[in-house]
Amino acid sequence: MPPDVKALIFDVFGTVVDWRGSLIAELAAFGTARGIAADWPALVDAWRGAYVPSMDRVRHGARPWVILDTLHRETLDRLLDEFGIAGLDDATRASLNRLWHRLRPWPDAVAGLTRLRRRFVIAPLSNGNLALLTNMAKHAGLPWDAVFGADLFRHYKPDPETYLGACTLLDLPPGQVMMVAAHNGDLAAAHALGLATGFVPRPAEHGPGQTRDLTPEGKWDVVAPDFAALAGKLGC
Amino acid sequence: MPPDVKALIFDVFGTVVDWRGSLIAELAAFGTARGIAADWPALVDAWRGAYVPSMDRVRHGARPWVILDTLHRETLDRLLDEFGIAGLDDATRASLNRLWHRLRPWPDAVAGLTRLRRRFVIAPLSNGNLALLTNMAKHAGLPWDAVFGADLFRHYKPDPETYLGACTLLDLPPGQVMMVAAHNGDLAAAHALGLATGFVPRPAEHGPGQTRDLTPEGKWDVVAPDFAALAGKLGC
Repeated sequence: MPPDVKALIFDVFGTVVDWRGSLIAELAAFGTARGIAADWPALVDAWRGAYVPSMDRVRHGARPWVILDTLHRETLDRLLDEFGIAGLDDATRASLNRLWHRLRPWPDAVAGLTRLRRRFVIAPLSNGNLALLTNMAKHAGLPWDAVFGADLFRHYKPDPETYLGACTLLDLPPGQVMMVAAHNGDLAAAHALGLATGFVPRPAEHGPGQTRDLTPEGKWDVVAPDFAALAGKLGC
Repeated sequence: MPPDVKALIFDVFGTVVDWRGSLIAELAAFGTARGIAADWPALVDAWRGAYVPSMDRVRHGARPWVILDTLHRETLDRLLDEFGIAGLDDATRASLNRLWHRLRPWPDAVAGLTRLRRRFVIAPLSNGNLALLTNMAKHAGLPWDAVFGADLFRHYKPDPETYLGACTLLDLPPGQVMMVAAHNGDLAAAHALGLATGFVPRPAEHGPGQTRDLTPEGKWDVVAPDFAALAGKLGC
């Protein structure tokens, strides 16, 4: 690995937490409790499917800055209509939207981060907003040293302002900061700006039959199957 | 206390950590090791004495944004000259400046924060920069949920952008956020913006004979002699 790395910044959705499994389980339980039948996996995939397009409207200037909680809520309202789920009041919708604040970490995440934290400053660098990430960390026990949400920069990844903004706040040159992600695109953007890169594939992120991001598609500095192996490779 | 408070934000220098005692002890040890005799308490008081004036030049537009590490270093370089301490190279000066990253918490701070964290989101809101605060937390074991340095807002307290910026990032209205500080001026600024207020006097912050900030000078929502008592009053 690059010898000078002092901080690790982590993609969160998919890399640290299992958004798909968490949301499907929570929504299925909600449906059972409320007597609502729906194709919850399809709704969750559609919810996440709107993630990039909804951020792109902000990134490309079609609308002013809004936090991810707002984008998630707009998508949820639309999908509830499309899936024919009627009669949910505002408080219920707000509660469902907050499921993103309580996503479950992958089984290796907390123990691996705890090891990595001994040697490195560790922080998320996520398109989630700071409140979402802070609530998630509290709920899941993620031992971050600091929290970088997209709202600190008012830019979404892969805009350079996010990666470079995190380096500036850490007061470190990009070469001393490693981006860790399960997504080759995130790493490519970080690498282009001079950050070190760590790839931890999450082949179950998108459920059975996942075809993307199964293998490294760049010369990433470190590749590891999970956070325990990442800690080992980084000498923790 | 205000019933709706969900997050506590803390002043750091003086409220959470004993900057004066820490710096005097570290500089005296440095002096002994290097054979340098100096009036270290006077140097530390002068270092801190330049804090407000140096930030005011940024706050009032006399110079562009710079982080507190930079202000501390400029002051240190000047004081080393004034105190007749010669021959320190750049690396040594940088190391001395980093003493601000390793200040000792008051004896009640870590245990109190750990209790408060069970019920509230807790974060520093300091004029220190994020890297300083993050390093300090790692060194001292301060269990912050998130870290708000002045560089997130490119404003120093008591500018409103700091208090309101923290509330925005927490996605909470000011009335659900409590500013905790040992300084009446900090609380007055927060109160004027609608934040709740908690006063924890630190009568030894400035050493023997301290005359300021010994008692509450406003109708603060909570007054407690230390963080343990604060946790008790807030139901933790």
